[in-house]
Amino acid sequence: MMTGALAVEATAAAGQTYTVPPRPLPVPPTASPELRALIAGPLNPGWSQQPASAEAWRTLVRTFAADVELVLPALIAREKVKVRADRIGGVPVFWIEPDVLPPENRDRILLNFHGGAYVFAPGRSGLRDAILLAGRGFRVVSVDYRMAPDAPYPAAIDDAETVWKALVARHPAKRIGVFGSSTGGAMTLALVVRAKAHHLPLPGALWAGTPWAQLDKVGDSYFSNDHVDNALVSYDGLLGAAARLYANGHDMADPELSPVNADLSGFPPTLLTTGTRDLFLSNTIRVHRKLKQAGVLADLNVYEGLSHGDFERDPDLPESREVYGEAAAFFRHALAR
Amino acid sequence: MMTGALAVEATAAAGQTYTVPPRPLPVPPTASPELRALIAGPLNPGWSQQPASAEAWRTLVRTFAADVELVLPALIAREKVKVRADRIGGVPVFWIEPDVLPPENRDRILLNFHGGAYVFAPGRSGLRDAILLAGRGFRVVSVDYRMAPDAPYPAAIDDAETVWKALVARHPAKRIGVFGSSTGGAMTLALVVRAKAHHLPLPGALWAGTPWAQLDKVGDSYFSNDHVDNALVSYDGLLGAAARLYANGHDMADPELSPVNADLSGFPPTLLTTGTRDLFLSNTIRVHRKLKQAGVLADLNVYEGLSHGDFERDPDLPESREVYGEAAAFFRHALAR
Repeated sequence: MMTGALAVEATAAAGQTYTVPPRPLPVPPTASPELRALIAGPLNPGWSQQPASAEAWRTLVRTFAADVELVLPALIAREKVKVRADRIGGVPVFWIEPDVLPPENRDRILLNFHGGAYVFAPGRSGLRDAILLAGRGFRVVSVDYRMAPDAPYPAAIDDAETVWKALVARHPAKRIGVFGSSTGGAMTLALVVRAKAHHLPLPGALWAGTPWAQLDKVGDSYFSNDHVDNALVSYDGLLGAAARLYANGHDMADPELSPVNADLSGFPPTLLTTGTRDLFLSNTIRVHRKLKQAGVLADLNVYEGLSHGDFERDPDLPESREVYGEAAAFFRHALAR
Repeated sequence: MMTGALAVEATAAAGQTYTVPPRPLPVPPTASPELRALIAGPLNPGWSQQPASAEAWRTLVRTFAADVELVLPALIAREKVKVRADRIGGVPVFWIEPDVLPPENRDRILLNFHGGAYVFAPGRSGLRDAILLAGRGFRVVSVDYRMAPDAPYPAAIDDAETVWKALVARHPAKRIGVFGSSTGGAMTLALVVRAKAHHLPLPGALWAGTPWAQLDKVGDSYFSNDHVDNALVSYDGLLGAAARLYANGHDMADPELSPVNADLSGFPPTLLTTGTRDLFLSNTIRVHRKLKQAGVLADLNVYEGLSHGDFERDPDLPESREVYGEAAAFFRHALAR
């Protein structure tokens, strides 16, 4: 609506970094009551930790994993799925299968990469996303890929490629959807970058939930949603420390670490999910734009009031149910039968 | 990536309004050089004005209009369009026609409502959006609807309905697309709400660019992007004053003033456009979600670094060219021939 000429005001001046003044951020009445309760709560207290040694990282990993494993039995029971450990091409995986598999999904597989900043959520503690999609009628295989500090880049993406090769050797790729949130969203994209480079078949469809598409602190919402996102809170804490641990000296802008920098042409149809408060809002919308620029069918969804990964953190939010329902509907429509 | 239990930290506490601390917001390298220059500039200095009388409003309207009219001749020449004043159902309109009309668009019309907070951009000064779509090969008719302070709600939407009725009496509705930015985006949506209520035919497709879908200060990004958006800057200035002037005592939550509150079922396919810094990010994504929940085909696009209405303010940004190109492509695909 503003059409007047611009003139200098306040703290902004050409070439300088502008400082956003402190601002009230009320709980939005436009979010569900359940999400409002989450927003009214405190910032995630763990965000600023920077473990000083590999052993300190491992202790933190165990603490987080124990928290998740406490809630897993109830989630598995409620979603009516079975979990079974297996190996594919030597890489440990879990199969999560619904008690009732709809006929249309009988020959389809969803391949999942869990989140956790390439450090967290080993073993069964990485299965929440996979359980929630399996509960919506899909056979899901989730990869327990190697992680930092013991196995930094490129171990995780090497494991992803190993599983993909083995899987497509026995199953039509167009009937396989790949998905993940956060780090899992980045690995979903990076796997396709690898598959293109190595002339492997490509999946039928992707869901990248709030993907960590740029590993280094580049992108508008790393700054605009700093201390607005109450889950990640800021890049300059545990997140940035995990990025450095995983990259292990490699260039973080490399397309395998930051797949938003890759050539995304030829990608399969892709669903993208983020929220207005998400530190990864820019990561998500930048991938969407690059996909559209490359002529790829891409469907962006931004949820009111959601911070990073809220939908996995609290799957009982009405917003979370909508997110997983949307992902299931997307795969039902986009995947070959 | 955070999986630990939550605990109290810093300024957030249940039920209270959290205060976001001051934060640096650098110019993002992920925006085009041209957009970076706009972002590096100052906040729009006019944002905080609150004219004290109808005459003060009219003076401001004339000032803004004169600024735009200065650049119109060059824009008209560059986009290779002709502008012609007319009336439809007694309401003043402008026809903007490209020198070369592609055969596929010969029987299509785009109906435009300009932005300007229901106060600004009268006459030819409201034609930028219309010229930019016409320049991409469409016959556009832009409505010079009545505005506040002289004609508050419901004059604008009454004029919109009058034009729509006259237009569909002589042209197939499915070959008409409706579009607008900001206030024009809200009117685009509100017109369809009216048309549904009055059993008029509905358009073939819509483009709501950063629509003012909620007139009162409700929605997350009115707060999270306060002083992040360098065009509107804040609701609590000229924008809020214009909202009160237009509503003129009516309930701002009324679906005709805040169409995000309407039943959006049965809407035509809708393109939505916003940016990471847009004060209307929530307005835009909330409409997108409600459309999807109602089963409507809706395509959301969020541009890195864009503040409210940047694409109309500076149509030479690469991002702006992409926005208008995307809108033209959308109408080419979605409208009946």
